Amino acid sequence: MNYKQELIQNILPFWLENAIDYQNGGIYTQLDETGVVYGKEKSVWFQGRALWTFAKAYNLIDRDPKYLKAAEALYDFLPKCTDTDGRMFFTVTEDGRCLQKRRYYFSETFAAIGCAEYYKATGNPEVWQAAEKYFQVAYECYTGVRKVQPKIDPNNSSMKALSPVMIMLSTAQTMRSACKEEADKYDAIAGACLNEILHGGFLTERGLLESVSADGEFVDSPTGRVVNPGHSLEAAWFVMLEGILRGNEEAVAVGKRIIDITLPLGLDEKHGGIIAFTDVKGMPPVQLEWDMKLWWPQCEAMIALRLAHLLFGEEVYREKYEQLEKYCEKHFIDSVNGEWYGYLHYDNTVSATLKGNIFKGPFHIPRLYMIMAVLDADGRIERYAM
Amino acid sequence: MNYKQELIQNILPFWLENAIDYQNGGIYTQLDETGVVYGKEKSVWFQGRALWTFAKAYNLIDRDPKYLKAAEALYDFLPKCTDTDGRMFFTVTEDGRCLQKRRYYFSETFAAIGCAEYYKATGNPEVWQAAEKYFQVAYECYTGVRKVQPKIDPNNSSMKALSPVMIMLSTAQTMRSACKEEADKYDAIAGACLNEILHGGFLTERGLLESVSADGEFVDSPTGRVVNPGHSLEAAWFVMLEGILRGNEEAVAVGKRIIDITLPLGLDEKHGGIIAFTDVKGMPPVQLEWDMKLWWPQCEAMIALRLAHLLFGEEVYREKYEQLEKYCEKHFIDSVNGEWYGYLHYDNTVSATLKGNIFKGPFHIPRLYMIMAVLDADGRIERYAM
Repeated sequence: MNYKQELIQNILPFWLENAIDYQNGGIYTQLDETGVVYGKEKSVWFQGRALWTFAKAYNLIDRDPKYLKAAEALYDFLPKCTDTDGRMFFTVTEDGRCLQKRRYYFSETFAAIGCAEYYKATGNPEVWQAAEKYFQVAYECYTGVRKVQPKIDPNNSSMKALSPVMIMLSTAQTMRSACKEEADKYDAIAGACLNEILHGGFLTERGLLESVSADGEFVDSPTGRVVNPGHSLEAAWFVMLEGILRGNEEAVAVGKRIIDITLPLGLDEKHGGIIAFTDVKGMPPVQLEWDMKLWWPQCEAMIALRLAHLLFGEEVYREKYEQLEKYCEKHFIDSVNGEWYGYLHYDNTVSATLKGNIFKGPFHIPRLYMIMAVLDADGRIERYAM
Repeated sequence: MNYKQELIQNILPFWLENAIDYQNGGIYTQLDETGVVYGKEKSVWFQGRALWTFAKAYNLIDRDPKYLKAAEALYDFLPKCTDTDGRMFFTVTEDGRCLQKRRYYFSETFAAIGCAEYYKATGNPEVWQAAEKYFQVAYECYTGVRKVQPKIDPNNSSMKALSPVMIMLSTAQTMRSACKEEADKYDAIAGACLNEILHGGFLTERGLLESVSADGEFVDSPTGRVVNPGHSLEAAWFVMLEGILRGNEEAVAVGKRIIDITLPLGLDEKHGGIIAFTDVKGMPPVQLEWDMKLWWPQCEAMIALRLAHLLFGEEVYREKYEQLEKYCEKHFIDSVNGEWYGYLHYDNTVSATLKGNIFKGPFHIPRLYMIMAVLDADGRIERYAM
């Protein structure tokens, strides 16, 4: 597949033409098969994520002013998604009034990477200030300086989760790349997150666990036994990339190790594709969608596999990568209406025909295509991280 | 099927033998295919629901002391599931310490019906006081006297939901049946809930909507377009039963009407069974599990159809009921290990082999079997409501 061409001619136009709201600002993501908006509630995650995507496409792939115009509409909408305490909402009305505010701080991390990438495109110091402000709020939640209502009573269960560590690593990577003067600060945070993924207890012989006890031990409960294979494979390439950037061979090796332990758990040998969740002891997964094929784990698996092949040269990674690419072309990509379906049944039939919702918008797919375009061009993954 | 026999020999023993925790009190519901506990976190919903089930089986079906012994272990565990403010938790550790507390007050309504039914069995006035205490907390949340953190900012979206009205109707029905002296009070509440289901705007030509605007109008958004067919059919029989009990012919007719508008939305003509969610305008449902077959909508559909046949005599209801009964026998009932599977794929293959989780335990299935046993015996549904 010609990723650069498909990015420019299929994926980005699908969202540019159907989703950007130049009237109110921001982006709709609830788009049906043909791109028609079926719901006007806006996902705050995607205000930041789409800002990142269009700014990154402008910086890395093609200096098309359309991308910058979309980024501007997204950037201008961010203050409406932000509460008086600096925390962001989870969903807002089309004109940016709060619908839902949640304990999680992913909205803030996505706003930070969006602003950081938009700053690279514009050089506007106010944009960098916004990036730092959103990062700071997220980081305060991450470190506990800013108190976040815990979902589970911490007196009676003390688990720590992989997600926040992964997201902070990835966010710090982007922040580091955007501003030379502040790079050391973000490099230190990225280094600490990397260390936690490598040595925090998540990486076990069973798989890369989503949750472990506060002191890094395996917990034999449904929560403690969860592996999210798409998440594990995303962590694998985050860690390999960080290993390359800081010359840390251990990190590169751990990334490979994560791929090797995750594929047997996540790859559906019978129907193809990566499943959504599994229980490492083979007990019944509690997530209803556990054996569905979601779009984003396929994206993350393809990145991890291609990077592993590049770094280690083992044919098995190339084979698995090519199998998965063919699988996505056959089952996920909608050659009639553009973009990808998001949700397939276990047997690869389409479950929901939607192209977007609160959780699916222009992020994982354009990120995949941009990385593939970089690797197709010169094989230098570092260029993606600049 | 011989429902009474299956209830006594298959369904209730599955939970009595595998799930009741006579050491700590309460019940585990995270049971795998063969009844082995795979997770020890306890669902507070099911402490009340299982109490109701075993007490009801004792009162209605068979005065077996095993049922009363289980009920006692469940009743004694309820105080541990209750916070100092009177609100109940959502999940607790096996020894009854809070894990999760949620805004919803279903835990309290289930504790109320559990205590009410256990009071019928024991005549212990302390048990009735507990029932009234839990009901009162739930009712204060329902009316707004007790403030509950709203999920969606009420300044920017004012929708009302069907669930709380249905649950309060059903809870008030059980409370009314348990104590003659207080019957008028609960009868008035049941009457108000019935009126809201009939005239609150939920019942439309499109279907019985899960959510409408605060003033009862259709809202053309993903939330406003949701019909949950299992829920609609459960409402249908709640309303028909209440219509019978209070001699309200309109309610009986509305129950029939709900069935007639729901079946075309919810019945999978190709594979059989009732699906989980649909969008009344045919837009993509946002719930990932929308076309899965869950156990409980099949139970509620069977009750509604059999009751409609009893009341109206139309053959179509008998046919649909018998089709659904055969469908469940073929796909849901596990003739090897007992009980029902809970979650089938769209094509009726088993998705998760578990027999229980935080949301599936001894409630919908034993309730179905008890109602069928009553109807098999003498066709007098009123007996179930006594």
